[in-house]
Amino acid sequence: MNHDPDRPRDIAHIGPVELYTPVLEESRGFFVDVLSLREVHRDDTSVYLHTWDDYQSWTVRLIQREQAGIGRTYLRASGPQALERLPGIDKRVSDVYGLGEVSLFTDPDGHEMGVYWDTARYEADDTDRPALKNQAAAYPGRGANVRRLDHVNYLTADVPKTSAFLADVLGARCTEQIVKDDGSAQAVWFNLGQKTYDLVYTEDWTGANGRLHHIAFATDTREEILRAADVCLDAGVHIETGPHKHAIQQTFFLYVWEPGGNRIELCNSGARLILAPDWETISWTRAERAKGQAWGLKTIDTFHTHGTPVVPPPGR
Amino acid sequence: MNHDPDRPRDIAHIGPVELYTPVLEESRGFFVDVLSLREVHRDDTSVYLHTWDDYQSWTVRLIQREQAGIGRTYLRASGPQALERLPGIDKRVSDVYGLGEVSLFTDPDGHEMGVYWDTARYEADDTDRPALKNQAAAYPGRGANVRRLDHVNYLTADVPKTSAFLADVLGARCTEQIVKDDGSAQAVWFNLGQKTYDLVYTEDWTGANGRLHHIAFATDTREEILRAADVCLDAGVHIETGPHKHAIQQTFFLYVWEPGGNRIELCNSGARLILAPDWETISWTRAERAKGQAWGLKTIDTFHTHGTPVVPPPGR
Amino acid sequence: MNHDPDRPRDIAHIGPVELYTPVLEESRGFFVDVLSLREVHRDDTSVYLHTWDDYQSWTVRLIQREQAGIGRTYLRASGPQALERLPGIDKRVSDVYGLGEVSLFTDPDGHEMGVYWDTARYEADDTDRPALKNQAAAYPGRGANVRRLDHVNYLTADVPKTSAFLADVLGARCTEQIVKDDGSAQAVWFNLGQKTYDLVYTEDWTGANGRLHHIAFATDTREEILRAADVCLDAGVHIETGPHKHAIQQTFFLYVWEPGGNRIELCNSGARLILAPDWETISWTRAERAKGQAWGLKTIDTFHTHGTPVVPPPGR
Amino acid sequence: MNHDPDRPRDIAHIGPVELYTPVLEESRGFFVDVLSLREVHRDDTSVYLHTWDDYQSWTVRLIQREQAGIGRTYLRASGPQALERLPGIDKRVSDVYGLGEVSLFTDPDGHEMGVYWDTARYEADDTDRPALKNQAAAYPGRGANVRRLDHVNYLTADVPKTSAFLADVLGARCTEQIVKDDGSAQAVWFNLGQKTYDLVYTEDWTGANGRLHHIAFATDTREEILRAADVCLDAGVHIETGPHKHAIQQTFFLYVWEPGGNRIELCNSGARLILAPDWETISWTRAERAKGQAWGLKTIDTFHTHGTPVVPPPGR
Repeated sequence: MNHDPDRPRDIAHIGPVELYTPVLEESRGFFVDVLSLREVHRDDTSVYLHTWDDYQSWTVRLIQREQAGIGRTYLRASGPQALERLPGIDKRVSDVYGLGEVSLFTDPDGHEMGVYWDTARYEADDTDRPALKNQAAAYPGRGANVRRLDHVNYLTADVPKTSAFLADVLGARCTEQIVKDDGSAQAVWFNLGQKTYDLVYTEDWTGANGRLHHIAFATDTREEILRAADVCLDAGVHIETGPHKHAIQQTFFLYVWEPGGNRIELCNSGARLILAPDWETISWTRAERAKGQAWGLKTIDTFHTHGTPVVPPPGR
Repeated sequence: MNHDPDRPRDIAHIGPVELYTPVLEESRGFFVDVLSLREVHRDDTSVYLHTWDDYQSWTVRLIQREQAGIGRTYLRASGPQALERLPGIDKRVSDVYGLGEVSLFTDPDGHEMGVYWDTARYEADDTDRPALKNQAAAYPGRGANVRRLDHVNYLTADVPKTSAFLADVLGARCTEQIVKDDGSAQAVWFNLGQKTYDLVYTEDWTGANGRLHHIAFATDTREEILRAADVCLDAGVHIETGPHKHAIQQTFFLYVWEPGGNRIELCNSGARLILAPDWETISWTRAERAKGQAWGLKTIDTFHTHGTPVVPPPGR
Repeated sequence: MNHDPDRPRDIAHIGPVELYTPVLEESRGFFVDVLSLREVHRDDTSVYLHTWDDYQSWTVRLIQREQAGIGRTYLRASGPQALERLPGIDKRVSDVYGLGEVSLFTDPDGHEMGVYWDTARYEADDTDRPALKNQAAAYPGRGANVRRLDHVNYLTADVPKTSAFLADVLGARCTEQIVKDDGSAQAVWFNLGQKTYDLVYTEDWTGANGRLHHIAFATDTREEILRAADVCLDAGVHIETGPHKHAIQQTFFLYVWEPGGNRIELCNSGARLILAPDWETISWTRAERAKGQAWGLKTIDTFHTHGTPVVPPPGR
Repeated sequence: MNHDPDRPRDIAHIGPVELYTPVLEESRGFFVDVLSLREVHRDDTSVYLHTWDDYQSWTVRLIQREQAGIGRTYLRASGPQALERLPGIDKRVSDVYGLGEVSLFTDPDGHEMGVYWDTARYEADDTDRPALKNQAAAYPGRGANVRRLDHVNYLTADVPKTSAFLADVLGARCTEQIVKDDGSAQAVWFNLGQKTYDLVYTEDWTGANGRLHHIAFATDTREEILRAADVCLDAGVHIETGPHKHAIQQTFFLYVWEPGGNRIELCNSGARLILAPDWETISWTRAERAKGQAWGLKTIDTFHTHGTPVVPPPGR
């Protein structure tokens, strides 16, 4: 895939996200105790949580819902003018906690998204004020100590269509992809700035729409992920696979399932960034993927079959 | 300092740099054996070296010169149009190894810089071909294993003037700064994309022009830096200070002097990035800096007195 | 110093220790929140705390006392017969929580010690039961996550005399030492098994008796110590020096002061062990020590002047 | 299994080992380039290699032989008297490079062993002299940087018999074991001092005798093992499984096959030691092992089927 390096990057980063869970308080417990987020706001059906180095007022909203899954993904525009340049807006709302006016739309697979410019800054209080003023809140020193939301990996019934949407409408750039034997994309990794990726679309084997593969949080070190594995082990959290290193994007990873059923990744990319403005998309074939992950780990079956909400595969 | 978030980011990243050294082969030995760069090209008076994850054909050029110091810093434009938008060019040259046409200029303190768009990709050969095709060369597994050039810290006789140049001409954004009691800046950290910083200017206490404080290389982990300290210890490399963590920017650091006398930093920022497009410059006062580095280390005297080329302070 | 390799090693390891503190609850807060110990027992004037991988029922007892300092150090014999072989016992007591009969004595500098064989095993409950049955309690995932007590460093007015006591009476072996220009020992590191050291005596510049330099806790990684530095920073704990690496014994260290004033070390030795049964004592001279710690850090002044209880130096 | 804590520990540590390889120079290349050992001696059919923190003159001898496998394992006695106490000696030889008189014997499965007291110290030369005199040689800063040989895991046709030999004759202590449904041991981990284990016997499913499961080298950190995985990946070394953490003994591990076919483990135990002189053997059942390794990794098939020399299983 090619992109125009001179096209302005109108989306700065992925912002807060909403997750649905059938067990709100259990999910909250996982995010607070294991991932080390902090509860910062609450309403009748949801809880707002913050990662310690997010400059914005909240990072994840957990919403009580019959089935697990992903709600809205908010994206911050790069500036007021960038916000105006973005096309395809369905409607504008002003009732989102911590954000100013949000322009809502859906991707071609039905995932809800919202772009915004105005946002409230996180304000630490006496219990989490950091010693160094260049971080949002004190380092929690608890559980996985995730620094920030890193990326969202969506399932989609039509990778090429959502991929085109990301490239054409949002101006995201495809850094790596999996191509099927027929040459079409099976999964695509897009970035918004210099991170290796921010938004990922993976083919949904069930043909369903609007589902989630996982959301991921970044840690500062691989050691935090190794320790998080011990924390999950003792806390009875389901470890799906890892820790190991992906061949694609070389991310060091651990996948666990939060109590509501959503897959959560802890990830670390070391100092790897995509600095080249004309980075050429890396394509991985079936043969290459047959080698397994970077150090040879075979991909676990559930990685291909579990998504939220859980749906029966077609024909069963 | 404020900036316009909608202003396009016309410089993508700092590119290769030139360093002067009075002891070319000794300096080369340090960069190859201790930092783990690879020699990729050589001419009569200089050696071109490559870090294993640089997508470009070379990262550092060591040039034999009577005195240590910094030569040209090359900056890659974000695109062909971005290159055209940059003002203040002195002349264009086409004789730089591995780069296309380069637009040359100097900063207000006399440091030479060059902006370019066309660049040659690094091509691994049979001796350094990586197993994973999303990295430029095989992981060296030697010395400090630095992944890439991270930033350049220049000494300047006039911080406000060079700072204005970075902001106004290059469109760089100031993420953190040290302010003197009179409110003027004593040191400024600017970034070009989402890294915490790429270009730094520090006040030159000697009043001299065009000098270097240090260049820095990024490692994937803090552990690589701790091990590098052992490698330097056994190799007889002068360790100036560290490993420790800066309060400013929170960079984990180690400072050593290469055989030519130039100060070299090994640095790691964990997963810290500046994602906010309207990040407000963090200012550090003298009182705040009196607390020392993040964990209390007092700044070593030579950090304020050593630069290259070495010059006698005024009045002595 | 020489020792007879065939002499049985009658002391297996240092056991629980008692610390005095003028601020019992504040000290308890530090040990629980920052070091990650767990309160397991309490009486009128003291609190018993446990590190997560101690097989015994408690690790540290904090005792309310007007002045900070060290109380008894308990040492576990290698077996019932080993216990009988140890000479120089003052009296036997059976009222120590979690221990069987204890043979009490003092070292030549007046530090109280007790040797025992019978000991209660730690029994995890539903809130700290580990997933793997080969560890005593669940991994806390909180603060510094110290695994176990590592060593005690005593101040003494007479290093040669206490050193002889360690060697002759306890059968400990000197692995490293600092020698003064007159050839006498200024500090001595002794081990009881295959660890690099367990008991250390450092000359007390004040001439006082029975004081403490520090007690140390082992972490699994250096990364835990780097993170602990951040936890201490945000918690307002006084960081005295580090993280850095000692030249002597090569221990990676961080020194902090707990709220009661006692110096606490977090330490990691990597995979370093003393396997040679005829290890020859390594001696460090003043000239060698002038190079600073392993990577060049100069020893901070308070490291030579602070001990507990705090006493005025002689002649002042 | 019980042991008498008062029985002296007559074996201090496992000493150098011999490995057979059909491709001597290729195996040497792996040990030097990937594991970072150093060639220190050579004769017609073998090469002697040294790990950087081994106080003895050599660590591994690679011997050209038609089939891969393990040769002699040398064990250092705890002292001259300890050497005399050891029974069951077949003969004494004095022709082993770097060692004094060696008392030879075989374990019940036919593995050759030798116990010795006199040993030559490693002497660094100008190319590997360490800056700190408490380590044997300079830190290599190359490949996996293994510090020392950690343990040997033998295959045996009769675990109970070899286990009794280890306990009764050598005085080793069983720290953990796998028990079959009939209560007999399938694998046993024994230690000689305070390490978690030094000698391991695993049931040989082929019924053959004298074979090797793997030898292991200790690294200082888990990060060294993660990096070693990258080094092996780029060097084309076969990674069998890992990095991951064993449930048994909690060792962080990576298993690779050296060019001769012998399985090599890189391992790290953090600060875990067996300090209790009356440690009770931990027994793992089939049901417990069905949970996989500590974080859930399923044991790879070849782990149960590959040993050296390679032999066809019975009945095929």
